[in-house]
Amino acid sequence: MKKDKVSRAVIRRLPRYYRHLSDLARQGVVRISSSALGKSMNLTASQIRQDLSCFGEFGQQGYGYNVESLRKEVADILGMTQGHTAVILGAGNLGRALLENFHFDRSGVRLTAAFDVCPEVIGHDISGVPIYPISELEQYLNAHPTSIGVLTVPGSVAGEMAERLIAGGVKGIWNFTNKELPIADSGIVVENVHFADSLLALSYFISEAT
Amino acid sequence: MKKDKVSRAVIRRLPRYYRHLSDLARQGVVRISSSALGKSMNLTASQIRQDLSCFGEFGQQGYGYNVESLRKEVADILGMTQGHTAVILGAGNLGRALLENFHFDRSGVRLTAAFDVCPEVIGHDISGVPIYPISELEQYLNAHPTSIGVLTVPGSVAGEMAERLIAGGVKGIWNFTNKELPIADSGIVVENVHFADSLLALSYFISEAT
Repeated sequence: MKKDKVSRAVIRRLPRYYRHLSDLARQGVVRISSSALGKSMNLTASQIRQDLSCFGEFGQQGYGYNVESLRKEVADILGMTQGHTAVILGAGNLGRALLENFHFDRSGVRLTAAFDVCPEVIGHDISGVPIYPISELEQYLNAHPTSIGVLTVPGSVAGEMAERLIAGGVKGIWNFTNKELPIADSGIVVENVHFADSLLALSYFISEAT
Repeated sequence: MKKDKVSRAVIRRLPRYYRHLSDLARQGVVRISSSALGKSMNLTASQIRQDLSCFGEFGQQGYGYNVESLRKEVADILGMTQGHTAVILGAGNLGRALLENFHFDRSGVRLTAAFDVCPEVIGHDISGVPIYPISELEQYLNAHPTSIGVLTVPGSVAGEMAERLIAGGVKGIWNFTNKELPIADSGIVVENVHFADSLLALSYFISEAT
């Protein structure tokens, strides 16, 4: 179903489609027109049709989209059905916030373990996820091939931890450290979460509005 | 310097420009060509020129951009020199992660207070920021007009807290709750941080790469 060369902008919108379609499904909506879907997402009907056409033929003229089947298709496109697994490196405030409040499973990702250096958390588990000493990372990844490493360590050790994750065979790093990671030509995918970019966009919109 | 109708995509890239220009300035780079700047940002030279032309005339043919003056211009466009202030609602894990590790000041925002319901944190301060009881929010905002409310409360109270922030006169909400906020036609700007969107994009790129 997937085609080559889908633009990054479209890919960035896919998770929003997934969220909106999930909300609609929860509300019991069975089908929706591209214009109604567009309205709820602040996109035009033609943009919706164009985005989704990158991946195949979903809608039907005069009928619109079947919410549940489109939701499933988008989930599939997003790789949510691939059985991705994740470990968290760093069980500090941010790591804990993810452990306690973020539903990895709702993104199709199974969080299997967290690692830290702090004796007070090692050996415990948070929301059912065990916390191991970081010294056991290699051993763990060897025994449990893992798709995603989540980096919530201090920036000072971000590079080193990224290298250990890559050596351990992860396919992607979800990077909260605000540091550029030394991934070179490892073939690894990095997704950076830059809080500052988001705050600066807010700052822009406030300044523009006032 | 600002022009109307700058596209959202350009605005979303501005914080990245700011980050890259800050890095370059720190490295002592005085001027840079649009093609070199583009290369470091994975954009084409013509996209760089086009983006920046939305805001005025920065570069000079054959010279490129003066890093420091472009950095300042971008900061100005982003509203970083407007003296924005912020309060955090919710000093749980995520609130603490922001209090302890996120440098609001580097985005031109002064974080002045945090609010919580938990007696154990109220009255203390974290990284020099005082934690007040949420019952004092209105009084505080009244005495200290605040630009930005940061929502790191549980989703169940997100709507109520947003309403109190809006009534208290904030201009923007930085929303980490994953809930749609009831902003209606308040004129408030909301910037949502959806961790799941980022994780799903990573999931997509991993699936695409393998």
